[in-house]
This record gives sequence, structure tokens and C-alpha cells, in this order.
Amino acid sequence: MVQKHLTELQSYFTENKSRILEEFFTFLRFQSISSEPEFQGAMLDCIAWLKDYIQKIGFEVEIWKTEGHPILFASNLNAGPSKPTLLIYNHYDVQPVDPLELWKSPPFEPVQRGQEIFARGAQDNKGQCFYVLQALRAMWEKSGQYPLNIKLCIEGEEEMGSGSLAKILPHKKVELKADYLAVVDMGINKPTEPAVTLGIRGIVTMDVEVTGSSFDLHSGSHGGMVYNPIHALSELIAKLRDEKGKIRIPHFYDDVLEVSEDERSCLALDFDAEEYAHTFGTKATGGEKTFTPLERAWIRPTIEINGIHGGYCGDGFKTVIPSKAYAKVSCRLVPNQSPQKIGQLVASFFEENAPDGIKVNVHLHEGGGTAVRANHQSKVLKAFAKAYEEVFDAPCQYIFSGGSIPVVTKLAETSESEILLLGLGLPDDQIHAPNEHFGVDRLEKGFMVISRGIELLGNE
Amino acid sequence: MVQKHLTELQSYFTENKSRILEEFFTFLRFQSISSEPEFQGAMLDCIAWLKDYIQKIGFEVEIWKTEGHPILFASNLNAGPSKPTLLIYNHYDVQPVDPLELWKSPPFEPVQRGQEIFARGAQDNKGQCFYVLQALRAMWEKSGQYPLNIKLCIEGEEEMGSGSLAKILPHKKVELKADYLAVVDMGINKPTEPAVTLGIRGIVTMDVEVTGSSFDLHSGSHGGMVYNPIHALSELIAKLRDEKGKIRIPHFYDDVLEVSEDERSCLALDFDAEEYAHTFGTKATGGEKTFTPLERAWIRPTIEINGIHGGYCGDGFKTVIPSKAYAKVSCRLVPNQSPQKIGQLVASFFEENAPDGIKVNVHLHEGGGTAVRANHQSKVLKAFAKAYEEVFDAPCQYIFSGGSIPVVTKLAETSESEILLLGLGLPDDQIHAPNEHFGVDRLEKGFMVISRGIELLGNE
Repeated sequence: MVQKHLTELQSYFTENKSRILEEFFTFLRFQSISSEPEFQGAMLDCIAWLKDYIQKIGFEVEIWKTEGHPILFASNLNAGPSKPTLLIYNHYDVQPVDPLELWKSPPFEPVQRGQEIFARGAQDNKGQCFYVLQALRAMWEKSGQYPLNIKLCIEGEEEMGSGSLAKILPHKKVELKADYLAVVDMGINKPTEPAVTLGIRGIVTMDVEVTGSSFDLHSGSHGGMVYNPIHALSELIAKLRDEKGKIRIPHFYDDVLEVSEDERSCLALDFDAEEYAHTFGTKATGGEKTFTPLERAWIRPTIEINGIHGGYCGDGFKTVIPSKAYAKVSCRLVPNQSPQKIGQLVASFFEENAPDGIKVNVHLHEGGGTAVRANHQSKVLKAFAKAYEEVFDAPCQYIFSGGSIPVVTKLAETSESEILLLGLGLPDDQIHAPNEHFGVDRLEKGFMVISRGIELLGNE
Repeated sequence: MVQKHLTELQSYFTENKSRILEEFFTFLRFQSISSEPEFQGAMLDCIAWLKDYIQKIGFEVEIWKTEGHPILFASNLNAGPSKPTLLIYNHYDVQPVDPLELWKSPPFEPVQRGQEIFARGAQDNKGQCFYVLQALRAMWEKSGQYPLNIKLCIEGEEEMGSGSLAKILPHKKVELKADYLAVVDMGINKPTEPAVTLGIRGIVTMDVEVTGSSFDLHSGSHGGMVYNPIHALSELIAKLRDEKGKIRIPHFYDDVLEVSEDERSCLALDFDAEEYAHTFGTKATGGEKTFTPLERAWIRPTIEINGIHGGYCGDGFKTVIPSKAYAKVSCRLVPNQSPQKIGQLVASFFEENAPDGIKVNVHLHEGGGTAVRANHQSKVLKAFAKAYEEVFDAPCQYIFSGGSIPVVTKLAETSESEILLLGLGLPDDQIHAPNEHFGVDRLEKGFMVISRGIELLGNE
């Protein structure tokens, strides 16, 4: 019986493959970079295309206007009140593309090389969004109905903190009400190992501006006299951690909720150092030395500098002591840590440790988010774990993700639903980096997992 | 008698002021940024204009072709063998202009606001070169001859290390032979206080590249696992100095030649902390705490980060752990320190202190230079000190400059001449920075100092 289902799904994908890829490429071509104002038109084109696509597979579609990028909300409630409602979350915006020169092919001209499709957003999150849409489309084509009530929320600001979705949530409680919330933006550890995600980290981000003199100075005339803001910023960054990688910001770890023994016992914490080094070209030597690599990525908070600049960085040399130096700083958070509180602690640390002659200003960004923990005993998690096992023919693992989807906790609260975190990303998909890619095999498996998961949940 | 000379010079400047400023503005409009390849045409236009100008005031002019930017050499030896020969050094290239947005008027569209002329190169070194040319022109117009044999060397790579001039020197010993070398690229401390410079620091520059993973990583998935190269670079920079600002690179200070008591006794080492804070918007809190601010700028070596970048620095936020981070590093040197040796020490320090998982590559630049000391008892120095005193009607001070003109030592050796370091730059001219400027009053005083100095030296 299971085999028949799977064979049917495989046949559908094979028969429709050229159409699926063509449509996927169209989706990828929209330059939907949410954080850069010049791509606003591309954002609108992208959501219009999605609306049209989703309307054709039996959904009522609303475009929620916001102060930022619009949000797509869709629903098909024909399964009726006896069936549960599944709310699926995706996002249509993507990360910026620089450094552009490191892309082997242009980020918005998708190409397939071998099994992999290369483009910005190929995985995060257009690839994962698109196999959801294919799963829905196949059901709709087959029967003109869905085994569950289904709602879709596809937002356009995930890569910049989901500010607009967070703001609109209190006004959309009725629309979003659901039993289950499936966040399809996660990954698996290896192509052959299915996994559901039990937790994601929270995040808070900020800009740090360090000012010395009121204008740039000549490093000959002033070198040795003035406090160079690049030195000051470097010293502040170096001071963030002790020799064991522990963060030295006072009270940073105060609220950390440790993982329970029950949770830890089902976690796949094995780490293949050799494979990591081979894939990423470096060792997992960052962070707190008293924890294993996957503990550091999954269940421990971090502080990272995501960007730094100051002075002259072009060709040749300029003997300048700049007036200012800048850093972009983020913290990943674990359950119970408040983004606002941690942001304030970090800001105070930077400001209070500024050396004499140096001013530090920290601008905390809105849109941070708390960490999320899913219940590994819930009905929805069990249904999709089973779907994974069927499709991959392997036992489903339980993992964490180090990443963050800031709005997820709020979305779960607003919709009053039980969270499920799933997806088919792989660690080396190079999301947020040049040459992002996603496999055609995973597009197919994702399509099958979503189809089977919905079916299993509908049969409960 | 002196007063008559000065009145004559003042009258000349006043009568010719509109022509002088018009020609100066033309000189400033050439976008002669030597370190940026796209300005090669402007460099050639600029030197052609200079050639034409200098030919018209009685000089034989040669353009020395090099692998880089050409060098202007000019001579008028009509004073004959009984008179000494003065070689004057200037440069026609300028620094890059970014950050462009901080300029109040475009850097290559000179404007006068109040007494000051604003443009890239207004002081360094076109302003100082141009008053030399005016002094020569006035003499030529008056008598069709010069009281000394005069040679000019105006190069085009001072702002990028003078590599081409250094290379050509061994082939130009005959042409450059002189008794005195006047380097007109220096400054005075205050508008009312004339000063000759007794020393300039040497320099060595380099690029530092820090590599972690082989491509950019997502700071969620990898944050806490991988060693962020921005952190590594920051930690390396922080490690360069101890808490007292002393440089911790082994053997860095080994060869430092201390200033003699005789030299120190004539130095104007008084430092007005309040005025410094008022002018530059910050305190002189950098460098070695066991030395006074002017000692730190004049007679102590330094290490400065002149540029840093890595990761995402645009609008919004990108949660990336970059593959690479970069810094531009320079050291100012005092007499007896070798640029090559210090460069190697710095490079080794960066490379040997790289944490596990991080690779560091340091690229040392060519064209570093050793420090220079002038003899405060020499004939040429005394003549020009007297000229300064006459023009300013104030006692001439002896100062140092923290800056570097890497080629000067080599030029003095090649020409077998005694060095004189002079000029009318002020500490707040914002050279190498946005809104560089130079005063019309100083254009006039410079013209008078050069005129009187040459006259006095010719009368010996």
C-alpha cells in the first residue's frame, strides 16, 4: 500500500519533471532580495507569480500589504471542520548575492549542473517552497480536493528579520488559526538520512559603529597618537570571548535553558570531523571548546561578526587612520534567552569597553526572534517522521538547526498551533553564500514527503 | 634690505594672484590618483601640463618613462659651477578620494571657501609643488636667470611607495647630482610658527588575508562551530599591542635608534591636548603610553591597520560567516629600522599566531622606505630657516614629521646631497582624507620662503 503511494508520486514527478523544472527556474529568476531597496519591483513580480500559481490549485489567495514587503496568505478549507488544519510557512525572499565574483554562474540565471540546480534561493527557501506547491498541485490535479484544511503563509522578509509579518500577526489571528504549523525551511544532515528538526535558535542582530577622530587622519602624522577605531573595534571583538571560546559578556548565559536528557537521548550528535573539513575546507575549531561541534551549533548561543569594514580597502594602499569602523554583529539564542535582553547586554559590553578617545554606538535591529523547540512526541511530528522514513527508506533522525526563523515562535502562538520543523536542505547547499544550490533528487523527495505527510495526517 | 625683498615678493603675489589661482586650480583638476589604474590618462595629462609649465620658465625638461607612472626631471644650470646645485623634490600624484560621500565639494573641482582651497592634493603635494613653481617663475620673469643651479624631480608614485623612482635612481646618478636636496612635502605646527623638519619616519606596508572555510557559510548552521575569520583577524590585531600600547611583535624595537639629547633639546615637543581634541574630535590616546603624544608621532615606530573588511557590510543584514577577512597594515619606522626586516617580523607574527582552522597570508608591498634625519647644523637648513623667520617674522622651530616619503633616503644617496625637509602643511589640512585643503595665505608664504631661501643660498 505504501509502495503504491510512493510509486504513484514518483511517476507524477517523472512525468511532470520538465514542467516542474521550468516553473522552478521561473520562480528562481525573480531577484527577490528583500533587504536591498532596488529589488522592490522584483519582490512584487515574484509574489504576483506565486498568487497566480496558488490560485490555480484551488486556493483563495490574499496579498497582505505591509509597510515592507507583502505577504501571501492562501487557504483551502474544503476538508471541513472534522479535519485538522495545517498551516505551512515558507518565504519568497532571498539573501543578497555578493560577493558576486565568486558565483560560477549568475545568481538569478538558474542552471543545472549534474543533479544540482544553482541559483540564489535554490534551496533557501524557493526550492523548499516549490516542492510544497508541487505536492499540493499533484493532489489538486488528482482529486480536486485536499485531505486536510490547508493554509499557506509565504512571507517576503524572512532574510531581514520578518518585521512586517510580526507586525501583522495580531490582526490575522482568525485567518492564521490552525492545528499544526509546518515550517518548511529546515534540513537533513546527509542525503540518505531523513530527519525532523526539533529546535531552531533565536537571533538578535545589530550594527556597531566605532568612532575615533571626526574625520579620517593621515597615519603618518597621527599614527601613534590617535586611537585607531579599527584597532578599538578589533580589541572589542577579541574581548568578546575568553581563551576557551566562552562569551565574556556579563549575564550572557544567565537564561540559557539546558537540553533535557530525554531530548538529548534522541539527538543525532555524532560529528564527522574529517567530512566537515573536506566539505568546508576548515575545521570546526570555533566557539566554546567545552562543547562538541554539534552542541555548539544546535543548543548553545553564539556571537558572530557577520561583517566588518573601515578605512581603505581598494587596490594599492592608503595610509589613513579612518574616523570610523563598523561591524555587523549577531547572536544565536537558545530557548529562554530574550533577543532584546541579549541585544542590550551585547550593546552595553561594546559601549562600556570602548577605550578612552573612542565612541561606540550600537544600533539594535528590530525583528529578532526567540528560539523554538518542537515536541518530538506530537501527532504532526510523528506523521511527517513516518513520511520521511517511507520516502527515504531509512529511520528518521531527530536533529536541531543552528539557524533562526525569528517569526516562527510568534506565528505558532498566533495560530495556536503545534510546530513542525522540516525540510531537505543539506549543510553544503551554500545558502546565504555564492553558488547556492539544491538537488533535483531533493525536489522530488521533498514533494513526496509533503504529499505523504499530508496524507498520513489526513488519515488520522 | 630684507624688508624690500619681502615687499617685492608680496607685490608680485598680489599682482599675479588671479593668474596664480587659476593655474593652481587647473593643476588640481587633474585626477592624478596614482594607485587606481583608471586614472592613468589623468596622470599623463597632468605631467604634460607640468612639462609645458616648467619649460616656459627656463628649464630643460625630461620625462622619464618607467614601468609605472612617468617622472618629470628638469634642470637649469646657468648659475654655473661656482654656485651650488639645489635639487627640489615634489610629486604630482594624489591619494584616492573615498569615502566620496564625505566631501563637501567634489575632490577634483577645486573651490575656495574663505582663505582655504578645497580639493584632493590642495596641500599634498600639488599646493606645495605649485608655490615652488611660482617662486621659480617670479625669479625667471624678473631676471631670466636663477641664483643657483636648480634641478626639479616631480614624481608620480609618492602615494603608492615611489617604486618607479626608486628603480630608476641607479641610472640617473649624473642627472640628479646636487649639493642640496629640498623635499617640499612637509609642514608646520601652527599657521604662525615657521618650522623646518629634522626627520621623517620610514614605512612598510602589507596586505593581510585571513581564510577560514573555503566558501562563505551560514552563521546559523555554522555559528559556534567554525572559526570566523573576522574574529581571527580581530584577535590577531588585538594581540599586536600590550595594555600600554607597546607593540608585542618579537624584535620589533630591536634596531630603534634613540634621538640624541642634542636633537631632543631643539625639538618643539609641547603638545596642546585641548587644541588637538578640538581640531580632531578625539584625544591622543593611541600608541605607547610611556611616551608623550609628539614623541609617539615623531620618534617612535608604530603599527596601524589602515583598512579592514570582511563579510557583509551593505544595507540590512546578512547572516554570513565569510570565508575571508582582509586588512591593510602599515608600520612607521624610525632610523636604523629596515622596512624589509620589520615587514617580515610583522608577517611572521600574523602567520604564526593564526588559530587552528585559520590560514593567514601576508603580502609585503615593495617600495617601503627607511626613516630620514636631517642635520640641523647644515648650511642649507640654516638658509631656509632664516627665510622662514623673515617671512613669518617669528623664530624658526625644529620639528619632526610622523609621515614618510619612502624614496627620500635613496634620492639623497643617489644625488649625494644634503637633505632639507620643508613645507607649509598644517596638521588639520585633512590630507589623505575628505575635504583636503590648503590656504591661499600659505600659498603666498610658501612662494616667499622658497624665493628667499634660494636667494640666501645663492648669496653664500
